[in-house]
Amino acid sequence: MKEKITKRSTDFSRWYTDVILQAELADYSPVKGCMVIRPNGYAVWEKMQSILDRMFKETGHQNAYFPLFIPESFLKKEADHVEGFAPECAVVTYGGGKKLDENLYVRPTSETIMYAMYAKWIHSYRDLPLLINQWANVVRWELRTRLFLRTTEFLWQEGHTAHATYDEAEEETLKILEIYTEFYEKYMAVPVLRGLKTESEKFAGALRTYCVEAMMGDKKALQGGTSHNLGQNFSKVFDVKFQTREGKIDYVWQTSWGVSTRLIGALVMVHGDDNGLCLPPKMASNQAVVIPIWREEDEKPSVLEVANRLVRNLNKKVSVKLDDREHYTPGWKFYEWELKGIPLRIELGPKDIEKESVLFARRDTRDKFQVSWDELSYKTEQVLEEIQKNLFNRALKFREDNTFTIDDYNEFKERNNVEGGFFSVHWCGSPSCEEKIQKETKATIRLIPFEQQTKQGKCIYCNAASEHRVIIAKAY
Amino acid sequence: MKEKITKRSTDFSRWYTDVILQAELADYSPVKGCMVIRPNGYAVWEKMQSILDRMFKETGHQNAYFPLFIPESFLKKEADHVEGFAPECAVVTYGGGKKLDENLYVRPTSETIMYAMYAKWIHSYRDLPLLINQWANVVRWELRTRLFLRTTEFLWQEGHTAHATYDEAEEETLKILEIYTEFYEKYMAVPVLRGLKTESEKFAGALRTYCVEAMMGDKKALQGGTSHNLGQNFSKVFDVKFQTREGKIDYVWQTSWGVSTRLIGALVMVHGDDNGLCLPPKMASNQAVVIPIWREEDEKPSVLEVANRLVRNLNKKVSVKLDDREHYTPGWKFYEWELKGIPLRIELGPKDIEKESVLFARRDTRDKFQVSWDELSYKTEQVLEEIQKNLFNRALKFREDNTFTIDDYNEFKERNNVEGGFFSVHWCGSPSCEEKIQKETKATIRLIPFEQQTKQGKCIYCNAASEHRVIIAKAY
Repeated sequence: MKEKITKRSTDFSRWYTDVILQAELADYSPVKGCMVIRPNGYAVWEKMQSILDRMFKETGHQNAYFPLFIPESFLKKEADHVEGFAPECAVVTYGGGKKLDENLYVRPTSETIMYAMYAKWIHSYRDLPLLINQWANVVRWELRTRLFLRTTEFLWQEGHTAHATYDEAEEETLKILEIYTEFYEKYMAVPVLRGLKTESEKFAGALRTYCVEAMMGDKKALQGGTSHNLGQNFSKVFDVKFQTREGKIDYVWQTSWGVSTRLIGALVMVHGDDNGLCLPPKMASNQAVVIPIWREEDEKPSVLEVANRLVRNLNKKVSVKLDDREHYTPGWKFYEWELKGIPLRIELGPKDIEKESVLFARRDTRDKFQVSWDELSYKTEQVLEEIQKNLFNRALKFREDNTFTIDDYNEFKERNNVEGGFFSVHWCGSPSCEEKIQKETKATIRLIPFEQQTKQGKCIYCNAASEHRVIIAKAY
Repeated sequence: MKEKITKRSTDFSRWYTDVILQAELADYSPVKGCMVIRPNGYAVWEKMQSILDRMFKETGHQNAYFPLFIPESFLKKEADHVEGFAPECAVVTYGGGKKLDENLYVRPTSETIMYAMYAKWIHSYRDLPLLINQWANVVRWELRTRLFLRTTEFLWQEGHTAHATYDEAEEETLKILEIYTEFYEKYMAVPVLRGLKTESEKFAGALRTYCVEAMMGDKKALQGGTSHNLGQNFSKVFDVKFQTREGKIDYVWQTSWGVSTRLIGALVMVHGDDNGLCLPPKMASNQAVVIPIWREEDEKPSVLEVANRLVRNLNKKVSVKLDDREHYTPGWKFYEWELKGIPLRIELGPKDIEKESVLFARRDTRDKFQVSWDELSYKTEQVLEEIQKNLFNRALKFREDNTFTIDDYNEFKERNNVEGGFFSVHWCGSPSCEEKIQKETKATIRLIPFEQQTKQGKCIYCNAASEHRVIIAKAY
């Protein structure tokens, strides 16, 4: 029925695509570079949205919606920004059958259009902080695309805030990084490193970019989310001024931050295996599936009756689906739900009914064990919690096992080339060393991590004095 | 501080714009024809989304996401469809710095791109029904725009389903119309008429379009939502075929349906008044606001203490906001929350504390009355329910008082011109009469209502035999 999934160890990249297509998370569309997010994939995105949205609102942010189109002149106002984004934009030149007087860029990000409005709305310190988030689609033209990771159109949230002081803006930038970290670690069960991007990797127009980076199943890095302290760069260009409490006029201090449907790619690459997707319980819209099994027609009514009762009962605590489709065999269903990554499978047949028990099959470890009906509700919750923890711990161990502290450039080159992983090395801070390392190894400085022993050292490339270690890795 | 709102009776159109701008629901953007939906407006949209989304899911629909761009060749596949939509599209001709081989249209609606995928996904009757909904932005170029009602870009949901039989598709089309009706009447407190669009008003490419129509505060009609039975028009063009249970090959039967951010415009125009917006409690993210009042500084602590306690208690049942901002006076706050349409204001001052009561001020009737603390929770819920009902009944009475059954064309012309309203008239079914009526009166046939006495009659325009009455009105 389904095609076979390429083995993860044989070809990680083909395995990734196979899992996404066959678990029906997404599909290629007839529009070059754009994908279709299918219901299974969109359900994961909705789960992500609802959790993040709650976290944003609990910290005082409100949602709004700004235009899809950005006039060419707006994008050109901030020099670094236009240089970074204009080459990868889709450009509307006709509207309503007529050539436009001014080209419209499909938003690659919304700083310019949003801050033009902020200039209109913000007058006084009373209007600050302004804490706005937007859930939207954005377009960045891509030649080589990859489902969820790099597509011409993608979905994301972009937060854009304005503050009265530098300190408040910096605090906001870091608060968001904490939210992203909590989301990755507690909900996605994906451990992340937090830190600062280098000058050459920072957001076009930002003072400073913070990020979270995660290790994928092939030991490559994925930038998981970014939070930018924009300083007054944009407020000066878009004239976003306010009257301070003391009656003076100042430009506001700004931040912007975002995560995208890339998150789904990370989920696949961190937890998936040769049998397909493996969803952490907190990311699954159905956390368990009950599969009723019978051989003889006369066994069917009692099995279905018990199955329905157990599901009704379980659904008071967790989200459980009953798969009672009759035109598929139990074996077909096992395969299907493993592929789609449902955390827990609960089998129920006539033998189980005799023993007043069910068979649990964990998606993460593939362990199977009997659970009595008495304990069903409690055990289901307990096992789901264990799965959530186990996935995180497994991913953390994998990252730790594949992170290497190295001080010799040739050793780094060799190991980066052969086995891959994250390399913690000293770097002097010079963009020239950074560029050369990238050219010679295809690995990039992912971040300057927050957590490190602040020992002085020598740059792995040029031997000059270094203030900190950085994480270098090949990345998506 | 705020500008004055134009009186509703003086200039309905200016009043409408004033309310939206001053209640900060939306703002004009620097992009021609596009608006910014501000946090207050977006909160209403989120409320609408969450209710509709639940209703769609309860009836078996799943969300997905399809590309923003539609290749020119796709749009051109269905003849009526391209004729209806191509002239109002925004067209991307450049991407990634290069002229594109094929122009991309920013979706005005997604039938074509979605059904190309359906052709790939649907093979057998087992794959049906396919019930997919998408929340998305769409673009239709508009020369004369109006906040929420007619903007170049707007937000909406578009449902697109595929079925094995004509009957199932027709049933789905009508089921959705019921969902829209329930949403309008129970949640938005806006009564609607349900019925069929005429051939000339139906969706480009549909077999048949059903709609809900509502009367606005100026007696004009607003098309509130549409549900299309597409027949096999699109499935034949996009080759969406399936193997039937009997082993034959057939084209699927399809439906599509949508409502948009227009809903917010309807909410403003039906319930708003000279003091601003008036939200039905089920559409308000905050259903009540508590305003603590004190004259002397030493009164402040006890007032705030009680206010906080009451709000904490109320929030167990309803959603209540405490407005304890100190740089605004109580009078300023009253004005502000009336403008923003919060259904219930609860005032609490030192006198109230002595009497262990609060003062209720209803937004809909502007009635004020004391409520004791003992009864506070119960009374709040009760009053909110009354407001919800009252708004619906008021709007229903207004529509009934302004709907006229008329059989004389000159009388219709005169009354349509002078007082406006909905006119229930006989129509022979000829597009020619329909067109002439529109030209001569600027009123259009809004719908052929489901509910009518099926008396025969004579066309109000040409006197030919008529099978049913239609509703004619000027419309947005």
